[in-house]
Amino acid sequence: MRDIGIITKLSNPQALKATAKLAKWLHKQGCKVTITKEAAKDANIAKKIASSAAQGTLAQNRDLVVVIGGDGTFIAACRSVGTTGTPLLGINMGRLGFLTEVTKDAMLTTMAEVLADRYKIEKRMLLEVTIKRKNKEILKHLVLNDTVIHKGALARMLEYQVSIDNQFVFSSRADGLIIASPTGSTAYSLSAGGPIIHPTLNTILLVPICPHTLTNRPIAVPGDGVILVTLSKESSHDQRLTLDGQTGFPLRDGDKLLIKQSKHQLRVLHAADRNYYSVLREKLRWGEQVGTQDNS
Amino acid sequence: MRDIGIITKLSNPQALKATAKLAKWLHKQGCKVTITKEAAKDANIAKKIASSAAQGTLAQNRDLVVVIGGDGTFIAACRSVGTTGTPLLGINMGRLGFLTEVTKDAMLTTMAEVLADRYKIEKRMLLEVTIKRKNKEILKHLVLNDTVIHKGALARMLEYQVSIDNQFVFSSRADGLIIASPTGSTAYSLSAGGPIIHPTLNTILLVPICPHTLTNRPIAVPGDGVILVTLSKESSHDQRLTLDGQTGFPLRDGDKLLIKQSKHQLRVLHAADRNYYSVLREKLRWGEQVGTQDNS
Amino acid sequence: MRDIGIITKLSNPQALKATAKLAKWLHKQGCKVTITKEAAKDANIAKKIASSAAQGTLAQNRDLVVVIGGDGTFIAACRSVGTTGTPLLGINMGRLGFLTEVTKDAMLTTMAEVLADRYKIEKRMLLEVTIKRKNKEILKHLVLNDTVIHKGALARMLEYQVSIDNQFVFSSRADGLIIASPTGSTAYSLSAGGPIIHPTLNTILLVPICPHTLTNRPIAVPGDGVILVTLSKESSHDQRLTLDGQTGFPLRDGDKLLIKQSKHQLRVLHAADRNYYSVLREKLRWGEQVGTQDNS
Amino acid sequence: MRDIGIITKLSNPQALKATAKLAKWLHKQGCKVTITKEAAKDANIAKKIASSAAQGTLAQNRDLVVVIGGDGTFIAACRSVGTTGTPLLGINMGRLGFLTEVTKDAMLTTMAEVLADRYKIEKRMLLEVTIKRKNKEILKHLVLNDTVIHKGALARMLEYQVSIDNQFVFSSRADGLIIASPTGSTAYSLSAGGPIIHPTLNTILLVPICPHTLTNRPIAVPGDGVILVTLSKESSHDQRLTLDGQTGFPLRDGDKLLIKQSKHQLRVLHAADRNYYSVLREKLRWGEQVGTQDNS
Repeated sequence: MRDIGIITKLSNPQALKATAKLAKWLHKQGCKVTITKEAAKDANIAKKIASSAAQGTLAQNRDLVVVIGGDGTFIAACRSVGTTGTPLLGINMGRLGFLTEVTKDAMLTTMAEVLADRYKIEKRMLLEVTIKRKNKEILKHLVLNDTVIHKGALARMLEYQVSIDNQFVFSSRADGLIIASPTGSTAYSLSAGGPIIHPTLNTILLVPICPHTLTNRPIAVPGDGVILVTLSKESSHDQRLTLDGQTGFPLRDGDKLLIKQSKHQLRVLHAADRNYYSVLREKLRWGEQVGTQDNS
Repeated sequence: MRDIGIITKLSNPQALKATAKLAKWLHKQGCKVTITKEAAKDANIAKKIASSAAQGTLAQNRDLVVVIGGDGTFIAACRSVGTTGTPLLGINMGRLGFLTEVTKDAMLTTMAEVLADRYKIEKRMLLEVTIKRKNKEILKHLVLNDTVIHKGALARMLEYQVSIDNQFVFSSRADGLIIASPTGSTAYSLSAGGPIIHPTLNTILLVPICPHTLTNRPIAVPGDGVILVTLSKESSHDQRLTLDGQTGFPLRDGDKLLIKQSKHQLRVLHAADRNYYSVLREKLRWGEQVGTQDNS
Repeated sequence: MRDIGIITKLSNPQALKATAKLAKWLHKQGCKVTITKEAAKDANIAKKIASSAAQGTLAQNRDLVVVIGGDGTFIAACRSVGTTGTPLLGINMGRLGFLTEVTKDAMLTTMAEVLADRYKIEKRMLLEVTIKRKNKEILKHLVLNDTVIHKGALARMLEYQVSIDNQFVFSSRADGLIIASPTGSTAYSLSAGGPIIHPTLNTILLVPICPHTLTNRPIAVPGDGVILVTLSKESSHDQRLTLDGQTGFPLRDGDKLLIKQSKHQLRVLHAADRNYYSVLREKLRWGEQVGTQDNS
Repeated sequence: MRDIGIITKLSNPQALKATAKLAKWLHKQGCKVTITKEAAKDANIAKKIASSAAQGTLAQNRDLVVVIGGDGTFIAACRSVGTTGTPLLGINMGRLGFLTEVTKDAMLTTMAEVLADRYKIEKRMLLEVTIKRKNKEILKHLVLNDTVIHKGALARMLEYQVSIDNQFVFSSRADGLIIASPTGSTAYSLSAGGPIIHPTLNTILLVPICPHTLTNRPIAVPGDGVILVTLSKESSHDQRLTLDGQTGFPLRDGDKLLIKQSKHQLRVLHAADRNYYSVLREKLRWGEQVGTQDNS
């Protein structure tokens, strides 16, 4: 781990400050440091400390990319990493994130551990999303969390049909459908009533959003299948695909959506003693009483 | 009940046929019958049987308006009725509706009861929705079921703040917020996880859609308050108001939404022996087992 | 407000200490103070400061009863108050309660306001629960929060039938059924998926616990009806009634349970500027993010 | 498949009749048939048609055991099969079951397919449940669906702590905790708000029942871990373990519960063209509208 990139949440002054601090520290440790062009400028980091690159290519040929920001920055960095196989390490600037588990204060001590080869690498499933229109592939995209088909603002609802490996599963009328990886189970899917899925499980989660049929419950299906979602031809003319909650794409009636596990995985770097459940506990306040009246 | 209007779901051939049948029967009973211009044409109903009027004005000065279609047609008819006070009677053409409780087959026997003054009138709360932009009222509308603020397809989420009678209630980040009358509790609100509220209760229901904060549960507030929803200025620039799921209206950041019970109520006509709970049972299949494995 | 009783959570040393402090302060203000016999002993409070009485009769002829403890102590105090009409004021010793809204630190300043006649009295619905066995009344009890019918540990499930004012509502197979007042909506009912109901609403909430039929959703019914729950004769021989989560009672197959609003109400004393929603916000952490991954 | 056992729901006359019919038919096809002693007597089946055995040993050395009854009979048969490896085939006598997928009418045609070697065998995870009291193992049991720790009728709630592979996961206060296999995800777990998990997934599902902390959501954890549930010493003295919803066992404070995947699996025999999702669709009425008002 000597050639390290940094991707920064530019709109956050603390992230810029932390980027400068980390770049200097890494440089001092003898590492080669690469930051984004925008961070170089905004954080005023000298070229002798860190070279700069476009965010889209920064991850190529790096040993590690450190993400300084929040979970949204991590997701964006994941797009930059793409299929390069470069591992990511997330440092949050405010509250602990599901993806950015290292606090600002622990940044340098954690990095010292990493440079001393004390860390573990966890592989996270990526979903490959393909849109087919009239049998023609018009988009292919990798997501870490989820892809969502959602009715547009003008539409009353979405009508779609799901099949897996050519086996019909169900048709539904709903506001939308979330197709999530285990990593995505704690993102949008959780808001829509989905369960928490441990990130190492080989499964894909289907969670309908506000389904008309009340028994249309979240379902976890085998991770090796090919999921096909077909939009009803009689559906509204106003629907949209979202990729990791950040990129949108308009859909048309009759569009087909293919989702399967990518052969590529995201490599996430963690502290050697990191515990997945402690992140859950802190994010969801499991230790505290967030709830009902206590009669005792 | 001698001067009777009929509002018809034009796209449904059965509804047109039933309209012709009912118009003739009512004419034979000596009633004055008024149908919509479109129904007159599409169902080929002679002028001597029924006069015709625009749907928007048909309800004025009628003793009763019969709706032939589904719940969507009933909602549309409710808009026509507006503040005239004319009662509505709903006849469904397919499956039983929450609002159209009379089946096609029971149409004439039910109408015979009505003409013989054997019926009951139930009053349903209407919500008055006002949009204020920069302190200027830009829209005022009555709804029977609900009004929904929803993030647009391009937006990540909606940020809003709710207060009631100038008392701050909560702020939330979510896909949207449903403000429903008791009648609306079995419509969209139910899909979003809201409870069933008996239609006679004096309450307004607030149901967040996919809230980020998992403890943001549905809440029923007093029906006499004025609910103010303010869209965050830092929110997305892509959000929308829906009125009874049929009419949409684009919202801007900082728009204020005022919701309160209207002084007008919808008068709904029911068979004398009608039971609210039997409709629920049939719609939600409470009698049957729609659910989990039975170990017995 | 010169004749004031205090009911104390005896197992909490802080509550005993606060009781002594409050008794002395009230005595100094010229009030007549009555505490429970146990508190007098455990907190070592002199007879010249406060007389003592059994908890069951302490509320009789008092101007006010102050509850020092948690929500469970408040519920127990509510039983002591019974139908006397004496108002209650709750002071929590640890975390804010839904019923004990005044913090330990604010105890004396709040009491000073009360003695100066600056307060408001809120009336809370009480439910009257009657058990009938073979047409004979075998128990009658008032509850503030809820009454719950629950299958016993040995039973597979409970089978019951609900009717309201002699109108059949539904039959269900479930772990149990919660019948809650609006006050109880933030207690056990919330854990079972029920909505929050503003305490001033005239409604009773029916919330099935783990129903086999997934569409058996919580329902809020008119507060003036008489709810009859009949246990199926074919049901298990192992079921139980709970009253406010504190008192239990074994039920037999065929037992009938009648629940209606009592003519008595609980009078709860609040600070003049008290806001119901701020309690909700704090208890449910609505201000904070207790939830899903944030992509921004 | 020549040596076939039959396990029958004795309380169901149709099941007894079907047992006689199947025994005769199998005997005619040249199979060796074994039925339970009770079925032999109740269905009056001659010894030359079928030998009889105790239900507990009937599955030993059989090629196949056919279950005639409902899902509860299947679960009971699963206990008889134990670790013998004998596959099960379920025939329901009334409504389609999650486990008994073959209808009464399709019994003989399905069996003809089976005898002609046209079928598939699906392996289902079994959970091994061990109770330790003061470091001593006091019970070991296999379950197909789930094991549930539940507060007793007298208790207010259960307090427990979960760890997996010696890693602390969470502590909770709730009515109980369901630990379910994927097969069990459509049983009790579904009633308690759990997701549907495809039966081939290698995961164990933890679903709290009515948790006080509202963010305590269902979680699917890796199927290879050892789950340890420890009952709080300060908990109630009234709690119980249930095994597959049929067997109960009283627990004491401080008891430890170990749950892990058994090395044994249940082998379930299906028709060659069987589709898991079609069972879900039929059981949960996904094709129909079981839900909200439709505005169209």
